[in-house]
Amino acid sequence: MLTTPQSIAAVVNGRVQGDPLRALSSMATLSAATPESISFLSNPRYRAQLTTTRAGCVIVAERVLPLAPHECAAASLVVVADPYLAYAQLSQWWAAQCRPPAPCGVHPSAQVEEGAHVHPKAWIGPLCHVAAGAVVAEGAVIGPHCVIGADAVVGAQTRLSASVALMSGCRIGERGILHPGVVIGADGFGFAPHDGQWVKIEQLGAVRIGNDVEVGANTCIDRGALEDTVIEDGVKLDNLIQIGHNVHIGRGSAMAGCVGVAGSATIGQRCTVGGGAIILGHLSLADDVHISAATVVTRSITKPGQYSGVFPFDDNAAWEKNAATLRQLHQMRDRLRQLEKKLP
Amino acid sequence: MLTTPQSIAAVVNGRVQGDPLRALSSMATLSAATPESISFLSNPRYRAQLTTTRAGCVIVAERVLPLAPHECAAASLVVVADPYLAYAQLSQWWAAQCRPPAPCGVHPSAQVEEGAHVHPKAWIGPLCHVAAGAVVAEGAVIGPHCVIGADAVVGAQTRLSASVALMSGCRIGERGILHPGVVIGADGFGFAPHDGQWVKIEQLGAVRIGNDVEVGANTCIDRGALEDTVIEDGVKLDNLIQIGHNVHIGRGSAMAGCVGVAGSATIGQRCTVGGGAIILGHLSLADDVHISAATVVTRSITKPGQYSGVFPFDDNAAWEKNAATLRQLHQMRDRLRQLEKKLP
Amino acid sequence: MLTTPQSIAAVVNGRVQGDPLRALSSMATLSAATPESISFLSNPRYRAQLTTTRAGCVIVAERVLPLAPHECAAASLVVVADPYLAYAQLSQWWAAQCRPPAPCGVHPSAQVEEGAHVHPKAWIGPLCHVAAGAVVAEGAVIGPHCVIGADAVVGAQTRLSASVALMSGCRIGERGILHPGVVIGADGFGFAPHDGQWVKIEQLGAVRIGNDVEVGANTCIDRGALEDTVIEDGVKLDNLIQIGHNVHIGRGSAMAGCVGVAGSATIGQRCTVGGGAIILGHLSLADDVHISAATVVTRSITKPGQYSGVFPFDDNAAWEKNAATLRQLHQMRDRLRQLEKKLP
Repeated sequence: MLTTPQSIAAVVNGRVQGDPLRALSSMATLSAATPESISFLSNPRYRAQLTTTRAGCVIVAERVLPLAPHECAAASLVVVADPYLAYAQLSQWWAAQCRPPAPCGVHPSAQVEEGAHVHPKAWIGPLCHVAAGAVVAEGAVIGPHCVIGADAVVGAQTRLSASVALMSGCRIGERGILHPGVVIGADGFGFAPHDGQWVKIEQLGAVRIGNDVEVGANTCIDRGALEDTVIEDGVKLDNLIQIGHNVHIGRGSAMAGCVGVAGSATIGQRCTVGGGAIILGHLSLADDVHISAATVVTRSITKPGQYSGVFPFDDNAAWEKNAATLRQLHQMRDRLRQLEKKLP
Repeated sequence: MLTTPQSIAAVVNGRVQGDPLRALSSMATLSAATPESISFLSNPRYRAQLTTTRAGCVIVAERVLPLAPHECAAASLVVVADPYLAYAQLSQWWAAQCRPPAPCGVHPSAQVEEGAHVHPKAWIGPLCHVAAGAVVAEGAVIGPHCVIGADAVVGAQTRLSASVALMSGCRIGERGILHPGVVIGADGFGFAPHDGQWVKIEQLGAVRIGNDVEVGANTCIDRGALEDTVIEDGVKLDNLIQIGHNVHIGRGSAMAGCVGVAGSATIGQRCTVGGGAIILGHLSLADDVHISAATVVTRSITKPGQYSGVFPFDDNAAWEKNAATLRQLHQMRDRLRQLEKKLP
Repeated sequence: MLTTPQSIAAVVNGRVQGDPLRALSSMATLSAATPESISFLSNPRYRAQLTTTRAGCVIVAERVLPLAPHECAAASLVVVADPYLAYAQLSQWWAAQCRPPAPCGVHPSAQVEEGAHVHPKAWIGPLCHVAAGAVVAEGAVIGPHCVIGADAVVGAQTRLSASVALMSGCRIGERGILHPGVVIGADGFGFAPHDGQWVKIEQLGAVRIGNDVEVGANTCIDRGALEDTVIEDGVKLDNLIQIGHNVHIGRGSAMAGCVGVAGSATIGQRCTVGGGAIILGHLSLADDVHISAATVVTRSITKPGQYSGVFPFDDNAAWEKNAATLRQLHQMRDRLRQLEKKLP
């Protein structure tokens, strides 16, 4: 692909400073850029790289201007309000230029059962199986090896990249993305203990996913026990996340990889959950709650804010000493109290 | 579907109080029920919902009777010894009524190699691959996109829902359920270090799974190095669990999502492991050991009981202070001792 | 299979002591061995088992010799420098004898698109999809249900066991192994926040994997945002691991199951990461850093060594007391200081 600062400025709603017609053929970070690259400066930490980058053009924030000549090695700048947003917008435009348009129709190796409704402007890829009653809407793209269960619904423009399992009765809205290995609608984990055995509780609910939701590779969202598991609009889930049955995730919340959310937890809107965090079941997080990576949330959180709980790592010997002492901590507190009584 | 309190009472071994012939067409929680719903009260915490529920019929425990009229809004009750068990039983009956019976035979798109043994009353779904020597027993249901390796065995009435990989030589017993993305029998993680390289130890064992075992979506159970990895009867595993090679899990144990069990660990009978817990390798858990969510088990446990080890979460500022101090804990203990010496 | 101590000695570069021609037909641990078994003693902890094992032949280290007759029940020994390495070598030889040779060609049910390059001595298994521009080199074995995206590359002798997704443009070198459910090249998790929404950053990089790399079941390695995610030669990853976009893992590093590595982390050479550990993004681990299981790495590590950070588990009551006290730890330190001032 070949473009120019001028064209890029139009895409990201910016203005050009310097040569508007320089030939640009790749996007790159400041450190990896070549003279044909468009790059961007968003994190102020990397500002010094402006002086050394080989990039032909850099997207920068209005607020970093003016740049003295020695502060910027690039031949031209595209100046915007928010360079990180501009980078996102440009990446989308770039991908749209480079990637082949999605085809329409049904690959001859796909198995579409009678009674499935596939829009003529959708694509069903190689070796997919689409069961009876399933609906695949206009512009939806189902990549190779996906399974669409009975009565499941894929909204318009939604993409299932490959090897996704969308089980019976589960629905995803428009413009969603499901990455490879995603499982939507496996049974929730429900058993009644009886006589030393686990009696299965059939999971009669489904999963309802809103619009503009992205779900990362090998992430699982379980179907509800009686009512549905619900993922609201604009939620973004990374890879290898477990969402238990009857969880409800509010609009615009995002979770990093390896998070586990146990059954019937309710997550508010605009929450973020760091990688590897665990959220126990049957509790609630208010809107705008931010959970740090690897934190274990053991009770409901009613106030917005950042919450954390991680054992600080250390070299092994130091950790061992402190960890061993930790097992005497309650007793240490008592000893401290004794001393305080003696020395008021 | 349409049923009545009378029919439900027969399913769950209860007795009706109130109208036995009321028309019921859905199962629901107390809070979401409509007048056509059958619901249940199991957790005493929700008892107040009995007064406001719109449910036409509620399953309750003998011990909550008698209910004054103002305490119960439902037109009829089904009274049982254990309402949660009754709910499980009813859910199974309900699912059996609603779901189409499993078909028999082989979908034309499935690839069943010569030398595979598929019972005429089993079902091999679309786009499955069944290798030579594999056995699929009577009533087994293999959903779309499953892979059954050479000489693998699927017991009677066992269901592989979709996209399951049961690798060569691995066996699962009767009435089991494997959810989408489950991998049974990938290689265990074994290498001999040599000259700065990892020399692979071929994994010559397999996986042996008993009867009535359920395995959640994208969970992995590795094949053994020399002997088999063993999962006994009645074990229930949730999603995204890792079971290392040569692990042995005793009868009736259950694990929640995101648990990791390292190689050669031995888990007793009737154990439970909370979500996100990690159990290190080459150690043993006695029968009836219960591990709290996100706990890291670093040594064997010989006595039944509940075990925990989680850093308590807090607002970020408070956590930071305490976590920083934690790195001085051992030294604090020494300072405390000094004071105690001075002030005996 | 039938072999002898003599043949085994040739495989593992050892020398026989005792009967060189005894018939051996299985590999087993010392405790499970039968008189037809070859076994090995590597961990000194198990030395006592030498006196009771039923194994017909045992691989032992030169340094344990001489063994008095009562110390060893086996009819013959194969003496080597490193018995664990010998076991690995023997396991490879054993597997090579027992397993059918990989076929060549394309299974009739596989979908190989026009413009894909499959070496005539490679194998494309049942129900695979290979997209245009993909390259599958000599001796590569693609098991059932794999997806090879456009322009992806599979190096010589590399095996994708089953249900692997190697997405467009991603490359793996020679002699690699990808276990079932592995996803290489799903989108990294990148969004620019804007007006309460997440604007997707298209992930324009790919994944580059070196030679002799093994990736465990259901592990995910995300494609880079602009540059590639890189896994160097000889890296070994266990199951259910998440590798974020633009991570770089140095040669010969190994990670156990359920590890999460966030985006843009750089892991040195010969590092090891224990199961369930979390490594935050944008940080670096030096060469020869060893992270204990379940440790959360929150900042860069510049010196080789072992690092840990796990809350020690305890019986639940003891843990509860200590965990509650932990929330007052910073305050306890202040109280301790007060006492020290009073009692200098």
